[in-house]
Amino acid sequence: MDQARALDQEPRRSPLHGLPVGVKDIIDTVDMPTEYGSPIYSGYRPQWDAACVAALRKAGAIIMGKTVTVEFAMRHPNKTRNPLNPAHTPGGSSSGSAAAVADGMAPLALGTQTGGSVLRPTAFCGVVGLKPSFNVINRAGVKPNSESLDTVGLIARNVPDAALMFTTLIGQSVVDFSEQLPTLRIGFWRTPQWPSADKATGEAFSQALPRLAKAGAHIEEVDLPAAFNEMYAVHSSISDYEVVRALEYERMHFADQISATLMKKIRQAEKCDFDRYVEAQRHAAQCRLMLNDVFLDHDILLVPSAAGEAPLGLQSTGDSTFNRIWTALHVPAITVPVFKGHSGLPIGAQLVAPYGSDRKLLLCADWIHKVLT
Amino acid sequence: MDQARALDQEPRRSPLHGLPVGVKDIIDTVDMPTEYGSPIYSGYRPQWDAACVAALRKAGAIIMGKTVTVEFAMRHPNKTRNPLNPAHTPGGSSSGSAAAVADGMAPLALGTQTGGSVLRPTAFCGVVGLKPSFNVINRAGVKPNSESLDTVGLIARNVPDAALMFTTLIGQSVVDFSEQLPTLRIGFWRTPQWPSADKATGEAFSQALPRLAKAGAHIEEVDLPAAFNEMYAVHSSISDYEVVRALEYERMHFADQISATLMKKIRQAEKCDFDRYVEAQRHAAQCRLMLNDVFLDHDILLVPSAAGEAPLGLQSTGDSTFNRIWTALHVPAITVPVFKGHSGLPIGAQLVAPYGSDRKLLLCADWIHKVLT
Repeated sequence: MDQARALDQEPRRSPLHGLPVGVKDIIDTVDMPTEYGSPIYSGYRPQWDAACVAALRKAGAIIMGKTVTVEFAMRHPNKTRNPLNPAHTPGGSSSGSAAAVADGMAPLALGTQTGGSVLRPTAFCGVVGLKPSFNVINRAGVKPNSESLDTVGLIARNVPDAALMFTTLIGQSVVDFSEQLPTLRIGFWRTPQWPSADKATGEAFSQALPRLAKAGAHIEEVDLPAAFNEMYAVHSSISDYEVVRALEYERMHFADQISATLMKKIRQAEKCDFDRYVEAQRHAAQCRLMLNDVFLDHDILLVPSAAGEAPLGLQSTGDSTFNRIWTALHVPAITVPVFKGHSGLPIGAQLVAPYGSDRKLLLCADWIHKVLT
Repeated sequence: MDQARALDQEPRRSPLHGLPVGVKDIIDTVDMPTEYGSPIYSGYRPQWDAACVAALRKAGAIIMGKTVTVEFAMRHPNKTRNPLNPAHTPGGSSSGSAAAVADGMAPLALGTQTGGSVLRPTAFCGVVGLKPSFNVINRAGVKPNSESLDTVGLIARNVPDAALMFTTLIGQSVVDFSEQLPTLRIGFWRTPQWPSADKATGEAFSQALPRLAKAGAHIEEVDLPAAFNEMYAVHSSISDYEVVRALEYERMHFADQISATLMKKIRQAEKCDFDRYVEAQRHAAQCRLMLNDVFLDHDILLVPSAAGEAPLGLQSTGDSTFNRIWTALHVPAITVPVFKGHSGLPIGAQLVAPYGSDRKLLLCADWIHKVLT
């Protein structure tokens, strides 16, 4: 409150002036403990603010507090519950950030995504999650998980709020959502993971496509070249090789304080050797260029955000299978809460745009959000 | 010495068992101060070892000490002198690591390269510098400068030593340098920077090419497609956008403790906006794939390591113009000290291989080193 009152006396620094923001606890803050979701770092106080936190403070935002992260932003669940139904997982690993925004604790939050750690929890909690183009939001002061994949993401109640946060962080002018969009060419891709999507997700998309067409969009069902099917294995190889090494220090000295879930994952990940990693990186580089061709005919791609609603129970944070490929392809992706599942929990639609077209993605996402809700 | 004696009692953990290694002070060490070459971090003690330091300790190496880095691994010179002639710069930013190995303080050292910060100082100090393929050596615990470019590099007295350190760090078997190489197809590229190379460099390459051919290599002068000429500007755009953001916290709170050299660089770098950055990343991604075609006809590329010998004076660390493009292309590059300049200081030859072909690069570099010295 002191910070808010002080900011009220100042000229407005940015559209975020005076707004409270939650920060995932994988991101360093100089004035609050940063524990990376691990007992190894219990009470740890960094000597700096992460670059993204410093940028928020410079813009006049107030860091409300740290939000719970899954252990080292991986898989082992932490204590957060889904505010829409506490018996269900909030998703992970940006569990606390998604739950905080969904529950009204803060209008904005920072998360990170290596697989689906922003898109999945925001879909499960019924808020908007934006994973911007790779590396456009700086990662200095974010605990590395897999450096070829880790992306700082933004969580907000709606698309215009996410856009305000994004443009402020990258130093662009605000997005004008009253602007009339030209006819939107939407490519709907079921993805190879479609069989794992639940019935409600299938029904939701079947009903949504004609509604989007009726509202003026040009919808075409697309099938990406076979090389993209391998991007799921490619994501795993890159992630495996890198995470094993990123946690070298913790594995050497604090193995007993690493969860059994993570240890199991690490032991499996150790099987990815240099040659498989290099081949995965080569494949990813090629697919990134091939994706440019896909976007010649489509402004954005529409795909599921997750296999369905937030699963019941807190033993797992759900599956990131619908998100991983886009993280590895370095393109911006957003989830908007436009559907409902059979338990009444939200189901998101994921939209994907070409690398660097984050602004266009936000405009399209807002239009689709308005049409479908 | 205590560590060395203790390791002597143990079974041999790796080829690096008991070997002393110097660590550039941009890389975190839990048992020694890490100051990033900046008064802002005077006396700072990290809570962890960087992943690459932990991996070295696990392999039984001894961290001898921290080596001087230029401020935040950028440009502003620090106190290190060139051990071959103290009136000359050792190069930067891995100044201390290159000088330590050249002076016999340690047989091995870690550096980092964002532009030419491993290849240039090692060329100036007459040692071997290896910048491996991007991200194959983990960067967790390395202070970020430009995350799309920063690469952990290795410094050694000769190629086989560099190879021992490299294969140990990535978990490969040792390289067998007695292996007979098939006829080496070397592409010699003058690069668009050739006019800035000094007379001695020109003479050295003119004499080296026939010697390599006589020793059995197939040498062809090549000219890369015009798109590669733009990679110099592309490197600057990526570096500019990212470094300004990576130092957000320090700029906000400790601007008075940032050198005038760095502040000037930051102010100029701030001109690179999101659109220019995105365009640069797109261009780099395309050139990385185009480079694969260049390597269809050549096992390696041979280019200068620097414009000439280490310049006289300590006001500047010299120019990284001959190294930057390869850092941005993410391919492995090595410098071997095979020539001498007019002041008697070393001049290096830089060799470049396809992404992931670090092992082949080491084999070729050793062969070339033997032929030319």
